[in-house]
Amino acid sequence: MDVGEVLKPYSKLIDREMDKRLPSPSSTKRLELKEFYEMIADYGKRGGKRLRPFLCINSCECFGGKQELAYPSATALEFFQNFVLIHDDIEDGSELRRGKPVLHLVYGIPKAINAGDALFYKMWETVLDNYELIGAEKTRLVEKEFCNLLHHTLEGQAIELNWNECGKCDITESDYFNMIESKTAWYTVATPCRIGAIIAGASEKHLKALVDYGVLLGKAFQIQDDLLNLIAETDEYGKEALGDIYEGKRTLMLVHLLQHCSAEEKKKVEKLFCKKRAEKKRNEVEEVFHLMKKYGSLEYAKAKAAEFAIEAGKVFDKEFVDVPGSLAKNAMVGVTKFVVTRKL
Amino acid sequence: MDVGEVLKPYSKLIDREMDKRLPSPSSTKRLELKEFYEMIADYGKRGGKRLRPFLCINSCECFGGKQELAYPSATALEFFQNFVLIHDDIEDGSELRRGKPVLHLVYGIPKAINAGDALFYKMWETVLDNYELIGAEKTRLVEKEFCNLLHHTLEGQAIELNWNECGKCDITESDYFNMIESKTAWYTVATPCRIGAIIAGASEKHLKALVDYGVLLGKAFQIQDDLLNLIAETDEYGKEALGDIYEGKRTLMLVHLLQHCSAEEKKKVEKLFCKKRAEKKRNEVEEVFHLMKKYGSLEYAKAKAAEFAIEAGKVFDKEFVDVPGSLAKNAMVGVTKFVVTRKL
Repeated sequence: MDVGEVLKPYSKLIDREMDKRLPSPSSTKRLELKEFYEMIADYGKRGGKRLRPFLCINSCECFGGKQELAYPSATALEFFQNFVLIHDDIEDGSELRRGKPVLHLVYGIPKAINAGDALFYKMWETVLDNYELIGAEKTRLVEKEFCNLLHHTLEGQAIELNWNECGKCDITESDYFNMIESKTAWYTVATPCRIGAIIAGASEKHLKALVDYGVLLGKAFQIQDDLLNLIAETDEYGKEALGDIYEGKRTLMLVHLLQHCSAEEKKKVEKLFCKKRAEKKRNEVEEVFHLMKKYGSLEYAKAKAAEFAIEAGKVFDKEFVDVPGSLAKNAMVGVTKFVVTRKL
Repeated sequence: MDVGEVLKPYSKLIDREMDKRLPSPSSTKRLELKEFYEMIADYGKRGGKRLRPFLCINSCECFGGKQELAYPSATALEFFQNFVLIHDDIEDGSELRRGKPVLHLVYGIPKAINAGDALFYKMWETVLDNYELIGAEKTRLVEKEFCNLLHHTLEGQAIELNWNECGKCDITESDYFNMIESKTAWYTVATPCRIGAIIAGASEKHLKALVDYGVLLGKAFQIQDDLLNLIAETDEYGKEALGDIYEGKRTLMLVHLLQHCSAEEKKKVEKLFCKKRAEKKRNEVEEVFHLMKKYGSLEYAKAKAAEFAIEAGKVFDKEFVDVPGSLAKNAMVGVTKFVVTRKL
């Protein structure tokens, strides 16, 4: 199953659902608000995989629910994603997002913070559309999932920002895995799948298993994301080449490199990671990348991502053996491969 | 009635309610999270009037509800306030908040944005505490009020940021009143009172009247806030003296000044308002303040604030004549005076 192809129609669907809920720039004559509305819609219009909304809708179907029941939650997840991207791009000092300059480089930091906040509010407002669709009790559960998602993601981001700021380099693999579990795994896989399953009325046992599945697959996703940041073509991937090294991100490749390179190389790499972005020279950044290649850090990370994805697949096979076969169930299996083979 | 005194016990109550819901820095051994938890609690610990939570609780009592029923919503309003202050301080380039350096000057912008987001999420989580207390239907209405509040506040902020950035000086009184209605009036008075009233089960007629009352009183509050920014002692008010002129804020005093000063003075003032904060010299900023005094702009704004507060009082007397007398009702009347006589 080519999950890349499966995702495409969901992308259009989520675009429509977002459009319905966002104020149209043409709806106001006030220039200040026109710009604000354009900013809120901007990242959504740049595309994106829509993996999280897809997982939510697909999980709902997989556990026997009608997919329409998951549309508001799926849309809210995409609003969440766009809110987080806007704020993270500022926090990380990124330059490109989905192939274009990040929002705060176009409009300035103050307006970009405010636009991110507006997407946060749109997420909440969209979750409230659930009341009529799935009733108060399930809506409450979905809202709790969103709060749990926020809890994990913001703590993960706090940890990473702290590392970046301190130039902290004595990070173990276990530190790194804990950080990406918080920062990425919940919001990318565990929560979208759990929300879909809650809407479908899945059992507690299945909901619990989706945490194990989601955390494993989410970690695989983040490692692949870090890899793509280093090796993907900017045109396809949409972020600046080697951006993570410029931004000083702690990745599995960096952890691996520091554990395997010589003392002298280690000193050099650590020195670079203590520098501010603007002070990093192109050749210094490339040298770190070459060292990662030299010591097999990329292959190591690739293998680790595959390992997590395979583990996730095993959890899925074991825990969801009693879920009737369906296209949606097949798609969930397909996703475990897609996460580590995707190119964007 | 001395509303300043009435507010005091509520301040302690809200502190307790916030404490219950915030992660304690001593609960984690991870230094990164310890700092994050301290940041989230920081503005709350600096004090503040707790006017919004008070209005929510008091309005609930005024319309016949038990005050405990409003505690989660009141606490969520304070989380909202602290979230907005953190982000606004970055967006406005402020330096002092409640007498101490703003959060982003202590921890840097990236971490401060993330801490603000965490308070946004705490607001949502706290609103969900309502389910058990007031039931699903009222919780839903309260959630809608929060979304409406966010809608207004973020649009108001978008408008103001746009003005500040463009150095826009051709602002009419009506532009200014519309902006502060969005930016301040809803979240300071209208929404807190409406939420309290919803919890108490107030009638649609009363809820509607609370918009009129709240918008008028909220506008009076903002004008007084702008005045205090110019004339209050830093020690008492907690922000830097003349900060609004440094930040390039469009205030009623500025609108009035530009309408009444000479063409030459106008040119000078407009030139200053187009400058970046760091380029503004102390004597230039003071000159604008002196011009405001010369042309009676401060007195004009003071009178306008009083006018709005009196109007709010009239709406209150007329629309809530059928609400039984109580201490809480007296306090609402007292607040209409407090808003324009307060010194902090």
